[in-house]
Amino acid sequence: MNNGPLDVVGIGNAIVDVLSHADDEFLMREGLVKGSMALIDTSRAETLYQSVGPAIEVSGGSAANTIAGLAGFGGKAGFVGRVRDDQLGAVFTHDLRALGVAFDVAPAEDGPPTGRCLILVTPDAQRTLNTYLGAGADLGPDDVDASMVARAQITYLEGYLWDPPAAKEAFRKASEVAHTAGRKIAFSLSDSFCVDRWREEFVHLAEHEIDVLFANEDEIMSLYQVGTFDEALQHVRGHCEIAALTRSEKGSVVISGDEVHVIDAELANAVVDTTGAGDLYAAGFLFGLSRGLDLYTCGKLGSIAASEVISHMGARPETSLAELARETLGDTA
Amino acid sequence: MNNGPLDVVGIGNAIVDVLSHADDEFLMREGLVKGSMALIDTSRAETLYQSVGPAIEVSGGSAANTIAGLAGFGGKAGFVGRVRDDQLGAVFTHDLRALGVAFDVAPAEDGPPTGRCLILVTPDAQRTLNTYLGAGADLGPDDVDASMVARAQITYLEGYLWDPPAAKEAFRKASEVAHTAGRKIAFSLSDSFCVDRWREEFVHLAEHEIDVLFANEDEIMSLYQVGTFDEALQHVRGHCEIAALTRSEKGSVVISGDEVHVIDAELANAVVDTTGAGDLYAAGFLFGLSRGLDLYTCGKLGSIAASEVISHMGARPETSLAELARETLGDTA
Repeated sequence: MNNGPLDVVGIGNAIVDVLSHADDEFLMREGLVKGSMALIDTSRAETLYQSVGPAIEVSGGSAANTIAGLAGFGGKAGFVGRVRDDQLGAVFTHDLRALGVAFDVAPAEDGPPTGRCLILVTPDAQRTLNTYLGAGADLGPDDVDASMVARAQITYLEGYLWDPPAAKEAFRKASEVAHTAGRKIAFSLSDSFCVDRWREEFVHLAEHEIDVLFANEDEIMSLYQVGTFDEALQHVRGHCEIAALTRSEKGSVVISGDEVHVIDAELANAVVDTTGAGDLYAAGFLFGLSRGLDLYTCGKLGSIAASEVISHMGARPETSLAELARETLGDTA
Repeated sequence: MNNGPLDVVGIGNAIVDVLSHADDEFLMREGLVKGSMALIDTSRAETLYQSVGPAIEVSGGSAANTIAGLAGFGGKAGFVGRVRDDQLGAVFTHDLRALGVAFDVAPAEDGPPTGRCLILVTPDAQRTLNTYLGAGADLGPDDVDASMVARAQITYLEGYLWDPPAAKEAFRKASEVAHTAGRKIAFSLSDSFCVDRWREEFVHLAEHEIDVLFANEDEIMSLYQVGTFDEALQHVRGHCEIAALTRSEKGSVVISGDEVHVIDAELANAVVDTTGAGDLYAAGFLFGLSRGLDLYTCGKLGSIAASEVISHMGARPETSLAELARETLGDTA
């Protein structure tokens, strides 16, 4: 176990993605809303899995994807999340540790199996998520290693953590430890349905707890219940120290007090599967931030990582992000 | 359970592939021979997995890949192989059944876990296989559903079946049932190391049991211990009713008595991972054969399927082979 300084610790649902192709008709027949994340229980997970075509299994989980990306840039990272001592738990654990990520939460010896997310990728490369939290539903404050949070420059949490009942307590503990140690809390709004479920609490968090906020256009507009991106921008400006707002092919806007940057998206060769685009944007951004780079470069690194991950199936990078960053930015990163 | 006629039944090791990228240096360090398949035990499987990078999990197994491909062409297929009642067993089972394949062998309730194959893909798109047979090692004649074999036009078996101790008994049972019912036995030599292990028995099989033989250039030369492809061709000509010999980018040669066809490879857009090329060639060929198509078209269908599978990671097709066949051949297939 490494006890040295960390760039970022991620806290999130430990999930293995089960990726399958589907058409719009299938989504309609199953009553699924394209682009959304729905929480499903054991029996729905069973029947939905039975109705989809052949799949591939890849480690996922929003914050875990971000942490994997951060490690891919060469960052030092840790992760907090719960798996069971089953085969998918072993897969999830291996895929983080193989990147050098510190992941030391002991797997549960009983209870539900490791969580999984059935992801349906439609021909337009959009993804529709169906998450069975499994063992992740029991994540609580005891799982948060305070010393790990204290030695990380940034602790990053996913909005999806508001779904499992005890995980928001884990958030509060992490936030307190981090701020006491003079560290920063970063947070992703995760998806607009998640914002719908937890709007009031998220607004409160944005005002009082979050130093760095990640959101896409839909999420930030949903948070403040406004009709335009620009209105949302004015709202968030006063709330968080830094907000990084992603807009798919329109790039991203980074705002921090009086400073604002409008950053183009990186062109992807082909858009195959948009799963993980937001997670990987956060990876690049946080890597830059933890290395003291300027906010424009942070956003640029986010765009580079997002562009890599949408060019193939799965939400974890397949090529070296450190090399991609060097190719695009030279030796500044 | 479907009791109607089947095009092809496959018998093979039930395996979930664990795919990871590796460089030549890694293979050297771990003493792995590029392009080969090595059988590994539980502890080697553990340590090797720990030493590789992040991976993706995809259903595999040589004959199972062929059967998946056959179903992708629209063929009616069944599979015989052994998994355990664990998560990877559920993945393997789902991925076949989702294609409409009849797969009814009950999962083992104890003993070793579902088999897996750690596949290292090097930058040249070559793959090096490390197979842990797991529950598959117990495959025996009792697992072979005689009525399924009897109602399939062709029963297809992989040479790798000679590795688990009781599986060759399963082969003998299948061969007897099939031939008694006036059906055909097809067989793949699997890989040249497998041929090295079982040469004498394979030569005997080719002369006496096998109606349709699949082999690549290395395998057929190894079988007859000759130095040129052409010599091997002359040997096999007298032995099997049909031999379909694949030669990577040089295409394939199909020989049956006085009939011989030399078929070009289909160009792949990009060669990403050659895992499954031989398996999918067999899928296309057997689909054509079961539909009574001429041998040239059978070989062409094999080339089409092989070209699809080498264009992405994993040994199962990601696009509709039936559609690819229509695009290339028109409505003849």
